[in-house]
Amino acid sequence: MSVTINCDMGEGFGLYHCGDDAGLMPFVDIANVACGFHASDPSVMRATVALAAKHGVAVGAHPSFPDLQGFGRREMKMDRQELADCLIYQIGALKGFLQAEGLTLNHIKPHGALYGAAMRERHIANGIADAAEVFGVPLLCMRGTLQEEVYSERGIPCLAEYYADLDYDGEGRLIITRHHDAKDPEEAARRVRKVLSDKKATTVDGTLIDMNADTICIHSDTPNAVALAQAVRQAL
Amino acid sequence: MSVTINCDMGEGFGLYHCGDDAGLMPFVDIANVACGFHASDPSVMRATVALAAKHGVAVGAHPSFPDLQGFGRREMKMDRQELADCLIYQIGALKGFLQAEGLTLNHIKPHGALYGAAMRERHIANGIADAAEVFGVPLLCMRGTLQEEVYSERGIPCLAEYYADLDYDGEGRLIITRHHDAKDPEEAARRVRKVLSDKKATTVDGTLIDMNADTICIHSDTPNAVALAQAVRQAL
Amino acid sequence: MSVTINCDMGEGFGLYHCGDDAGLMPFVDIANVACGFHASDPSVMRATVALAAKHGVAVGAHPSFPDLQGFGRREMKMDRQELADCLIYQIGALKGFLQAEGLTLNHIKPHGALYGAAMRERHIANGIADAAEVFGVPLLCMRGTLQEEVYSERGIPCLAEYYADLDYDGEGRLIITRHHDAKDPEEAARRVRKVLSDKKATTVDGTLIDMNADTICIHSDTPNAVALAQAVRQAL
Amino acid sequence: MSVTINCDMGEGFGLYHCGDDAGLMPFVDIANVACGFHASDPSVMRATVALAAKHGVAVGAHPSFPDLQGFGRREMKMDRQELADCLIYQIGALKGFLQAEGLTLNHIKPHGALYGAAMRERHIANGIADAAEVFGVPLLCMRGTLQEEVYSERGIPCLAEYYADLDYDGEGRLIITRHHDAKDPEEAARRVRKVLSDKKATTVDGTLIDMNADTICIHSDTPNAVALAQAVRQAL
Repeated sequence: MSVTINCDMGEGFGLYHCGDDAGLMPFVDIANVACGFHASDPSVMRATVALAAKHGVAVGAHPSFPDLQGFGRREMKMDRQELADCLIYQIGALKGFLQAEGLTLNHIKPHGALYGAAMRERHIANGIADAAEVFGVPLLCMRGTLQEEVYSERGIPCLAEYYADLDYDGEGRLIITRHHDAKDPEEAARRVRKVLSDKKATTVDGTLIDMNADTICIHSDTPNAVALAQAVRQAL
Repeated sequence: MSVTINCDMGEGFGLYHCGDDAGLMPFVDIANVACGFHASDPSVMRATVALAAKHGVAVGAHPSFPDLQGFGRREMKMDRQELADCLIYQIGALKGFLQAEGLTLNHIKPHGALYGAAMRERHIANGIADAAEVFGVPLLCMRGTLQEEVYSERGIPCLAEYYADLDYDGEGRLIITRHHDAKDPEEAARRVRKVLSDKKATTVDGTLIDMNADTICIHSDTPNAVALAQAVRQAL
Repeated sequence: MSVTINCDMGEGFGLYHCGDDAGLMPFVDIANVACGFHASDPSVMRATVALAAKHGVAVGAHPSFPDLQGFGRREMKMDRQELADCLIYQIGALKGFLQAEGLTLNHIKPHGALYGAAMRERHIANGIADAAEVFGVPLLCMRGTLQEEVYSERGIPCLAEYYADLDYDGEGRLIITRHHDAKDPEEAARRVRKVLSDKKATTVDGTLIDMNADTICIHSDTPNAVALAQAVRQAL
Repeated sequence: MSVTINCDMGEGFGLYHCGDDAGLMPFVDIANVACGFHASDPSVMRATVALAAKHGVAVGAHPSFPDLQGFGRREMKMDRQELADCLIYQIGALKGFLQAEGLTLNHIKPHGALYGAAMRERHIANGIADAAEVFGVPLLCMRGTLQEEVYSERGIPCLAEYYADLDYDGEGRLIITRHHDAKDPEEAARRVRKVLSDKKATTVDGTLIDMNADTICIHSDTPNAVALAQAVRQAL
């Protein structure tokens, strides 16, 4: 199976725009579509799913903690059951729009603080896995973390990500920020080529870490996301 | 096909309760489950669907205008497309919980002010019909109104309701109130028997109107809803 | 009293931006700051009030129907009391940030669909007036409409607006749109000069209507709002 | 200064009720009124403030993390500035209703998970203190915790609470639960008398801890809150 590009999309809300989804869609293989809890609304979701359908892009759900003001980047304490419920709601809502477009759900990728929490707290990873089991689709995850451990124990297929527009700290942990900065597309492409050829990535302090990626992530709210996507597309 | 009892359910929210769903479920054939926009939340929806599954009750979606504070009883101006999107989102979310319980979506019944608006405004009725077409299920409606006209024109199956716990005005229009009062169960049962035997209902000013009902509605937030449901169950 | 420029501001939300408030503030006399119900959030409000304080701009409240997704441009049915409550909440919240900056509330300007509804429905205009009486400040309004009639009957001071970036229909009614288009700054300045000199405005069908304005409105979400504000500033 | 009874009030929402505020108000000295972020809405706030005014009860703000579904009992990660903003918004909103009734703000008492977090995290306690400084009112707090330490360092007056309807663990920490159970009124009165006479409270494991309280808290959502309030009133 070849390495794909995945991109968080449909992250506008009402009159507010976020990211150039129309510009990005041609360079992307799988779209993680926001489900209304950190961004998006029913009309944004419908339009985003229709755009993905037009470009033959596979659609996954990008659910979040319920935190519209914080764009899902503020962690919340939730127990496993209420988290699973919260995710089933969001993923089900997205499936409504997939049904309208004749598509099926491809995968689930938790958003922001939820994704981060699933690397540290077993009940959060299990709540996500509970939702994935209901829908029978793979989860996007970070290899070598508690996420992957929990999902694998339960036999849920995982697709490992490499983030082309974020940095990794000295221990190989992804540095998740509330605002994303522009990245040099050539540098991003170089990193992706290294991941593909050597299965290694460079951290902020210059050390090399193992990076065996199934899919490369680009955030649509990174300022030069389209240029990044094009450069990474060529690298693949 | 025999006449059924339908009931709006899952209308609590967080720590707040609304209606004795556990008490009502044994007397009900089809449950209209709130979808989080006028009442309910993901955990309430999961619990309500599980309760319906346990009692063999068929589950439909009970979507609303987005108005949690007003319990969906305040009309909002929405255009047809954004209304359809808003409903697809809610119904899809409910289907997530149905999938978790191995159930399928039985029908759709618009809630409160949305139900009322669909009797007066064609673009509202069409937005509801757009959502129903995506999911391929029947709509609950009031016979002889614009709702039924629009749905029928488009070939969407309709189930006509009689409201056992609300009154009808002299023109045969349902009187929708923001708060529901207790009703005498015997009187409600008498009215239901008249609807079944004569296909007639009595209005507040004593006139008889045609009432050819497929399903009898009881609101779970009517104070004595369980007693009403028992009395109507016996009448059927 | 000289004619002022008023501008709706603080209409971003979370990570989403809306309008170049920093660019506009130097050209504005009074800022109508969104209160979190159609746009804005507590942090946006704090930053907007601080920006106004820095530029010596007087701050008024810009409350709305509760409709974040629709940017307050979808009308809702609310009764007078619950509308007044809804507005007192929003205006009070803004006053918290004014107190933090040592400012006082200058005025109230209802937003979007609420502003429009107050020109057609007496109970809406009265609900707005109820809130204005609590805070003892003037209301921005459209001269010659039901708004002004109700406010004047109750002795609430009104400041009449002319909209430099919107059109007026043949009956002299403001054409409120959900999305605002860029306007030619020179044309806008010409119109404002005509209002100042002749107390007349031109409608979309070329007729002249009376326009006795105390304040000129520019929307911060009109694409070229800063250029418009500069041109209107010069006209004044 | 004599010891008071404080009670969280106005915690209904829309059609949902929570607690017998009308029954409790006669037995209470100071009401902590919810501000719409964990419970309450503008109309509930108005009615609650009016009820307090009628009974001569002093009103404070009871702000929360933004978590309506979780009743503010789920902790959220917020930085100091955005927390202060979030609280200023809520407290300002309440002051709007106080202004309408001719009352002034008496105090601030953070709600639920926010109150708990202020006992463990300095930036949370500082964010609360930032808001209290804007309004110049005392904070309700737990003596001997990080809350009190931070508030006292900054010279903000504190009123120490004893919880008559919750338990304390072996280390003297309040046990905060998401649902409150009924308590024996006689037992609660006995505990309060012990706090008043000996300045000691008994923990769940039977040890005695220091308890020098200025105010006794009763939750309106404790099932037998009115009976508790009456018993504690007599004890005082």
